[in-house]
Amino acid sequence: MSNPFFNNQGPFNILDLLKLLKTETKITENFQINDIKDLVSADISSVTFFHSKKYQDLVKKTRASYCITTNILKNYLPTKCKPIIVDNVLIATSLISAKFYPNSIEDEFDNSVNNIEKTDFKTTVNFGKNVLIGNNVKIGSNCLIGHNTIIEKNVQIGNNCKIGSNAIIRNSIIRDKVTILDNCVIGKKGFGFFPKLNENLRYPHIGIVIINENCEIGCGATIDRGSMSNTEIGKNTFLDNQIHIAHNVKIGENTIIAGQVGIAGSSIIGNNVKIGGQAGISGHLRIGDNVDIAGGSGVIKSIPNNSKVMGYPAKNIREFLKETR
Amino acid sequence: MSNPFFNNQGPFNILDLLKLLKTETKITENFQINDIKDLVSADISSVTFFHSKKYQDLVKKTRASYCITTNILKNYLPTKCKPIIVDNVLIATSLISAKFYPNSIEDEFDNSVNNIEKTDFKTTVNFGKNVLIGNNVKIGSNCLIGHNTIIEKNVQIGNNCKIGSNAIIRNSIIRDKVTILDNCVIGKKGFGFFPKLNENLRYPHIGIVIINENCEIGCGATIDRGSMSNTEIGKNTFLDNQIHIAHNVKIGENTIIAGQVGIAGSSIIGNNVKIGGQAGISGHLRIGDNVDIAGGSGVIKSIPNNSKVMGYPAKNIREFLKETR
Amino acid sequence: MSNPFFNNQGPFNILDLLKLLKTETKITENFQINDIKDLVSADISSVTFFHSKKYQDLVKKTRASYCITTNILKNYLPTKCKPIIVDNVLIATSLISAKFYPNSIEDEFDNSVNNIEKTDFKTTVNFGKNVLIGNNVKIGSNCLIGHNTIIEKNVQIGNNCKIGSNAIIRNSIIRDKVTILDNCVIGKKGFGFFPKLNENLRYPHIGIVIINENCEIGCGATIDRGSMSNTEIGKNTFLDNQIHIAHNVKIGENTIIAGQVGIAGSSIIGNNVKIGGQAGISGHLRIGDNVDIAGGSGVIKSIPNNSKVMGYPAKNIREFLKETR
Repeated sequence: MSNPFFNNQGPFNILDLLKLLKTETKITENFQINDIKDLVSADISSVTFFHSKKYQDLVKKTRASYCITTNILKNYLPTKCKPIIVDNVLIATSLISAKFYPNSIEDEFDNSVNNIEKTDFKTTVNFGKNVLIGNNVKIGSNCLIGHNTIIEKNVQIGNNCKIGSNAIIRNSIIRDKVTILDNCVIGKKGFGFFPKLNENLRYPHIGIVIINENCEIGCGATIDRGSMSNTEIGKNTFLDNQIHIAHNVKIGENTIIAGQVGIAGSSIIGNNVKIGGQAGISGHLRIGDNVDIAGGSGVIKSIPNNSKVMGYPAKNIREFLKETR
Repeated sequence: MSNPFFNNQGPFNILDLLKLLKTETKITENFQINDIKDLVSADISSVTFFHSKKYQDLVKKTRASYCITTNILKNYLPTKCKPIIVDNVLIATSLISAKFYPNSIEDEFDNSVNNIEKTDFKTTVNFGKNVLIGNNVKIGSNCLIGHNTIIEKNVQIGNNCKIGSNAIIRNSIIRDKVTILDNCVIGKKGFGFFPKLNENLRYPHIGIVIINENCEIGCGATIDRGSMSNTEIGKNTFLDNQIHIAHNVKIGENTIIAGQVGIAGSSIIGNNVKIGGQAGISGHLRIGDNVDIAGGSGVIKSIPNNSKVMGYPAKNIREFLKETR
Repeated sequence: MSNPFFNNQGPFNILDLLKLLKTETKITENFQINDIKDLVSADISSVTFFHSKKYQDLVKKTRASYCITTNILKNYLPTKCKPIIVDNVLIATSLISAKFYPNSIEDEFDNSVNNIEKTDFKTTVNFGKNVLIGNNVKIGSNCLIGHNTIIEKNVQIGNNCKIGSNAIIRNSIIRDKVTILDNCVIGKKGFGFFPKLNENLRYPHIGIVIINENCEIGCGATIDRGSMSNTEIGKNTFLDNQIHIAHNVKIGENTIIAGQVGIAGSSIIGNNVKIGGQAGISGHLRIGDNVDIAGGSGVIKSIPNNSKVMGYPAKNIREFLKETR
């Protein structure tokens, strides 16, 4: 799928990309690079990146012609993929991504918006006062959009959706029969950057938010878009008020999440999961299917299918309740 | 009190109501049903519901002519009240409630609103820009309403109230001298539904929000309305920022609740209670008068009057601090 | 610095101020009081206040001519400073502050605002729809302001700032290159008042919010202004979504605070601190430089420099993880 939200400014010559990096790697050939992609989705015209042995199985199969990596990791690359040696792979990756997708670093407000009354949706959408719609937005049939809501450019909304008042949606695809309540902010960039003294280095967020059929998103939710992958919420998953979903998070289907829950970046939540109010889930975890997480829990490691956990750190619920009796 | 927010679409013939349910109960008489009500408030023209032995004392006294219940529970009914036998009382109750109150299931934006400048409040209220007011709203004397705020239809606001900017108020009665700060969403439906694979079943929320005299509600609060009863906040109770109050919650008088606290559905909080920041209170609990709950606590059982608790699960504060020293 | 946000209604004759208080202190001289200030910043034309032995070193050096204090504490005063004896110093102080700064008690919406299109910023700022700007606002060069955002009177914004949509900023100074995301409420009064049966006594908040260079403030943040001192965030400090910063808090430079964190009133956070998601920090604490606070922690005592803590109550992280294994 080509990304409808962030325009690729490429192709760029590999020699021009190299100039952006502190690297001793010498490349002499002229070569057009179309995109920067992860190890799996890269093709022959891509540059990719490899920063951790965790991905050594994936790197063997990459089709990328060039790979940003370190001196230590370069030996894992397949022979057709040439290394670009840097000290910090993630910073280098973010510099190259920013070259391809300069508009994905900051979230500037969409100045293409118009009052919905001046758009073709005037006759197809049931809308409130002061609704603003950006360029190239798609909205299906039988949708409601409340007062003061802003739908930024390129957003896609399915059929039979209900969007509340004072909501902001950008960089998102909303499928059919989704309800989004008041004051939500959906699709802003994640809280991802490289800490640097005096001026942190923001990196691109070219992932989007996808909310699938029949979901409900409570008031005041913030659902951030992904950096290199998408943030996605499965069918018929319901979120209560004041929930924070960080970048790259994937949530399964038929999952129920109570108020004020926070899920940190890149965690994956299964199907039929129940998460009680104010629970927190750390980043980069995998929560299995049919898991119950009690309200107030702090989850700091992955949880297998069919578990019930409670506590901080979260553990088997019966064990926790026995210990704290 | 007749409900000013949700129009009763009844009366309906009992035979027509029966068709909505999977039931083997046969009824032959023609009988007009005016409303669906709980065991206590039901009268002879009501259908009621009885789903748990907990309420066996109440069911004996109900005046309802019909009661949705199970085969097991039907023997508790008084002789004048005829059982309607179903597998799942709550689902059946929600189907009947939805028939009487179809507008109480979803929160569609109020399309009756007008800019306040086009209403009679133009001369009686001190208001900001872009304030929207629904049909049949009542606002007392000497009130302030900030910019972009939406007061939906039928809302009642007393005298000397101060409403901030970007707030949304619906299905609510606000008494005198109440302050509501920016970005609050008050009176939306609660996070109550019956989980079902692929498409959860939303149920009606015909309760409202009542905020009594001299209260202050901090920025970004969400106070959900009740399902079959009201959500209510007692006189002179102050809430800090980013607080979530779920459906059916009752909070007493002179209570102080610090930032980011969450109170789950149907819990009852006493008078003169102090709740520290980020504390969470599970659903269906009773917190007594003069209780102190330390910041960060997770309360999972009811707490008697005059207690001081801390921890997760919350316990006597001295015990907690000794154990964790 | 004279306070650009709260107009001093003084000077007042000391005899008139005395009439506001329940005091047996008799003063006969006519004397003009220009302001109420803390012990350190008071000058000869000020009244000050002294309510705790903690400040006995400061009181010796105060230059104030009058000091609100108790019968017990009055002996600490220097001879040139005359005591005004009351039962409750803080309530008396708040009554006098309210006399000097009557507009600092409540947060009434700014009715001086105009649509930015009607201001001189029309040509110097890149702005969205429905942006409202109060009297005497200053905005530097190359700034962006998103849709529906409200910048209230006297606010100062530096160069190269990016303000999102639906934000509200009042009583604040924003330095260069600051990013403030959607739905933030910055500069409202803190949750500070004296609890009283039936009608709590609000006290003035004459402090402001200062956000220094290169900061980023996430969506839905609430940053309250100070009561007698300022709330301040140091350079290059980044806040994620749904964070609550209470009145008088000071945060250092290069600090990173993840989503849904809450920091209670008057706490001081150092430089290069990292605070994980949903952590809470109690009031009046001092968190040193280079401290790491794990997500979900509840910090209830001060933390020295270079510590790593976790848990509730937060303790050394290795100790916590060993105990809870």
